[in-house]
Amino acid sequence: MNIGIIGLGLMGGSLAKAVKRYGIAKKVYGFTNSEKNKKDILELNLVDELVDLETLKKVSDVIILAIPVDAIIGMFPDFLDIDENTTIIDMGSTKEYIVKSIPTKIRKNFIAAHPMTGTEKSGPKAAIDDLYEGKTVVFCDLEDNGNLHVNKAFRIFQEIGMRIVVMDSNQHDIHACYISHLPHIISFSLANTVMGHEDPKSIIALAAGGFKDMSRIAKSSPRMWGDIFKQNRKNLLASIDLFESQLQSARKMVEDENYEELEEWMKKANTLHEIL
Amino acid sequence: MNIGIIGLGLMGGSLAKAVKRYGIAKKVYGFTNSEKNKKDILELNLVDELVDLETLKKVSDVIILAIPVDAIIGMFPDFLDIDENTTIIDMGSTKEYIVKSIPTKIRKNFIAAHPMTGTEKSGPKAAIDDLYEGKTVVFCDLEDNGNLHVNKAFRIFQEIGMRIVVMDSNQHDIHACYISHLPHIISFSLANTVMGHEDPKSIIALAAGGFKDMSRIAKSSPRMWGDIFKQNRKNLLASIDLFESQLQSARKMVEDENYEELEEWMKKANTLHEIL
Repeated sequence: MNIGIIGLGLMGGSLAKAVKRYGIAKKVYGFTNSEKNKKDILELNLVDELVDLETLKKVSDVIILAIPVDAIIGMFPDFLDIDENTTIIDMGSTKEYIVKSIPTKIRKNFIAAHPMTGTEKSGPKAAIDDLYEGKTVVFCDLEDNGNLHVNKAFRIFQEIGMRIVVMDSNQHDIHACYISHLPHIISFSLANTVMGHEDPKSIIALAAGGFKDMSRIAKSSPRMWGDIFKQNRKNLLASIDLFESQLQSARKMVEDENYEELEEWMKKANTLHEIL
Repeated sequence: MNIGIIGLGLMGGSLAKAVKRYGIAKKVYGFTNSEKNKKDILELNLVDELVDLETLKKVSDVIILAIPVDAIIGMFPDFLDIDENTTIIDMGSTKEYIVKSIPTKIRKNFIAAHPMTGTEKSGPKAAIDDLYEGKTVVFCDLEDNGNLHVNKAFRIFQEIGMRIVVMDSNQHDIHACYISHLPHIISFSLANTVMGHEDPKSIIALAAGGFKDMSRIAKSSPRMWGDIFKQNRKNLLASIDLFESQLQSARKMVEDENYEELEEWMKKANTLHEIL
């Protein structure tokens, strides 16, 4: 089959590499709006051919959207004339709002997926060979999709080495919030806490593994994450409040010098790693 | 010279490996209170000999304390009869309270150090070969130490491949709070937020790199971190408040759907990585 990928940054570029490596696509077509990225995509040889959107729609058996979540919704009108056998897969980090917004006319074709992988980097140069290898992909609300489309989507993600999980889109958004969206806003907050100090450089000079890990994802794309926070706003606000209440209870134990309780609280946190 | 190490967990055990590997010590002696650890220390061959405290004090030219910060203070009385040429180095993660508590009689001998390295693991089996390699060690308030002792301490940490930084202990505690203590209490809070969900297992099943990084240090030893939080209480409370105000301002932008401002706020967080 021919695969068309829209957006060839970290996610789309790495997917292009993966489907080529595993020989899944006869040809990989790409489309991007970004003039700046076109040069990189061609130099990195990420796709067989960069084409315009109308061409990509005609030549692709599967179209994959690897663009920010608001841009996914913005493209729905472009797909209203898609062939009934063409599968469209979005790889956005939020799912409920996207699924709710899919036009009825293409609901059978449109597969909502979220590969649970990434790095803090973005753009075509961030694309890596094994981004998807051994990771999990969540598919949402498949009951409204055509079998043909579900099968094509499963086949692609399975063949690039992913573990498939299916879930309701509202459940997905809660899970993704805890596992990804909340950690991101915490990491951005930690980075801004340090940058707000009068002398961040001398603090950073002492940074070891713990801080590096905790601040790595604060390097992520503000454009992309703004859209995610917007689309998962309700869950994000709720999860921030739950996190706040944990941090505030720890703060109170420290303030009240209630160190035995604090130790018990940390032991509870340790148990996360029995299941991680 | 002979080096005596008190506490042979992650930090002390890794130091024993390093001083042996670089041929810095003629003999490495060890002392531990933990019967459980004794077996592991001998099996792992971490030291040349496990001895009692009085023997270690007599045979060592340098004694290194690699124990929790409250235990360091608890041992001060044991060193009041130490030879004036014996150097004592503590490797605790807090410095101001320790330095203030050093008995006058051994102030010249007692070097306050903090190697900025570690992992979330603990105990003798956590000891690794290259824990100190290429990392930074902070020495505090050296003006009250004897030259002989400063020189011995510098030599050891330099020869195991560390970069030396000197700093006032109160400055150290503020820096270490931002770079290490605050990230730890955040990570513990994040872990407890997820563990507080009705179904943490199905959330964790989707965990990718971001969450794993953000929760890794939540596996750290509650005993050790309780002592650190206690000794750096004032700075910790202040830094939690600064972090809270960042997170709350982000929360408000999301709540008010002020996404342009949110994007600017994330861009500010991105700048951390120009200096990290």
